[in-house]
Amino acid sequence: MTRIKAILEYDGSGYHGFQIQKNAVTIQETIEKAIEDLIGEKTNILCAGRTDAGVHALGQVIAFDTSSSIPPNKWKFALNSVLPQDIRIIESRESREDFHPRFDAIDKKYIYLIHRSLKRRVFLEKYAYCNYEKLDLALMQQACSYIVGRHDFRSFCSSGSAVKNFERTVKDCTITTMGTFIKVAITADGFLYNMVRIIVGTLLEIGRLSYPPQYIKEILLSRDRSKAGQTAPPQGLYLHSVNYGDNG
Amino acid sequence: MTRIKAILEYDGSGYHGFQIQKNAVTIQETIEKAIEDLIGEKTNILCAGRTDAGVHALGQVIAFDTSSSIPPNKWKFALNSVLPQDIRIIESRESREDFHPRFDAIDKKYIYLIHRSLKRRVFLEKYAYCNYEKLDLALMQQACSYIVGRHDFRSFCSSGSAVKNFERTVKDCTITTMGTFIKVAITADGFLYNMVRIIVGTLLEIGRLSYPPQYIKEILLSRDRSKAGQTAPPQGLYLHSVNYGDNG
Repeated sequence: MTRIKAILEYDGSGYHGFQIQKNAVTIQETIEKAIEDLIGEKTNILCAGRTDAGVHALGQVIAFDTSSSIPPNKWKFALNSVLPQDIRIIESRESREDFHPRFDAIDKKYIYLIHRSLKRRVFLEKYAYCNYEKLDLALMQQACSYIVGRHDFRSFCSSGSAVKNFERTVKDCTITTMGTFIKVAITADGFLYNMVRIIVGTLLEIGRLSYPPQYIKEILLSRDRSKAGQTAPPQGLYLHSVNYGDNG
Repeated sequence: MTRIKAILEYDGSGYHGFQIQKNAVTIQETIEKAIEDLIGEKTNILCAGRTDAGVHALGQVIAFDTSSSIPPNKWKFALNSVLPQDIRIIESRESREDFHPRFDAIDKKYIYLIHRSLKRRVFLEKYAYCNYEKLDLALMQQACSYIVGRHDFRSFCSSGSAVKNFERTVKDCTITTMGTFIKVAITADGFLYNMVRIIVGTLLEIGRLSYPPQYIKEILLSRDRSKAGQTAPPQGLYLHSVNYGDNG
């Protein structure tokens, strides 16, 4: 058996997230079906980040084992020939036998797009959080500095998560503008359930002057989800990339 | 009864075109259902252009009759509160009792987006024709000049159309670049079935040097669909706006 590592981009708007579910079409199921269509083998693909319904990916990483004779770097073309157009393999190659896209990741980067315009554009509804409000970007940027570091992020984790350890290290958290968009970029060694979306929802509250940037410290120390802002909607979120250092 | 005129924007990627069909969700059906949900009245909405499956609109115009007491300019808000996010009413107002969005139009403008990049982006698949090829834009622009004017456009009409008169006046046909996009814009007093998409497919052949710009004249005179280029795919097409002069 050969383990194949692949990097993929997908438009999550037509899927109920990455992970296989009953009675709903997911990214995982679509790719596993594509592999079965190609070579008749049932596989169980592993991924770096189990994105939720409506969440997109620019650089999701998956791995699967195959006994097929398709050369590892040709899996890209083989899969793209059978996958729907909203899922595209960017790169494929052979990996270590025990490579795991999630457990071997050193860090992952997510971005979140907020579109600021009074005029709603139907074409952005699935790809950004469209909401025009007066936002103080400088305060939001200041708040980012309190997110960076090793913290217990329990206040930024939706219930329903099975994790026991809520400590994560956020290595980078920045806010930049791109035309009519605000882009929030967060890199961390790991993410809790809905962590990016709750951080974004909280940064929005700070931008609206609901509380000062320093309040992030209180939210973190409280370990109380109700202290943080609302979970921002899924369509603005993109799994940007996964970093394995020399280990990928 | 009051006749309401409304301008709307929609993302056509989730719909089987504008016009009501059996066993497929269309824009018309979705709006008529929204009106029924709002006021319990069954209506039959008229439109300016019956866009095909996957085709988008930035400025589609519809009209419908209602006995409701909703003020005409508030229909925008009323409908947007019940319509899905991929259909948005931009404006609503009362119109003449006999206003017809299609027959009263002086001209309509369509745009077609071609995305040129070696890197396929899943996020553009539904909103542009993504195809990187060497294209001679100057030749394509020259070809546009042969499209403009009053012609028999039978060569640029897909079969299955019931029209008898194939003469139309193209008032404007331009090609411009916007970043990595090519935008084709065509304004005419009327359009035959698939006319814009066949014109774009033919302009692409000219850009690829399959034949010279002047060949457009031969294609027009031949009145033979097989002489023109392929029908470009629907996802690049947008009904941009409808002009009624003082008559709308």
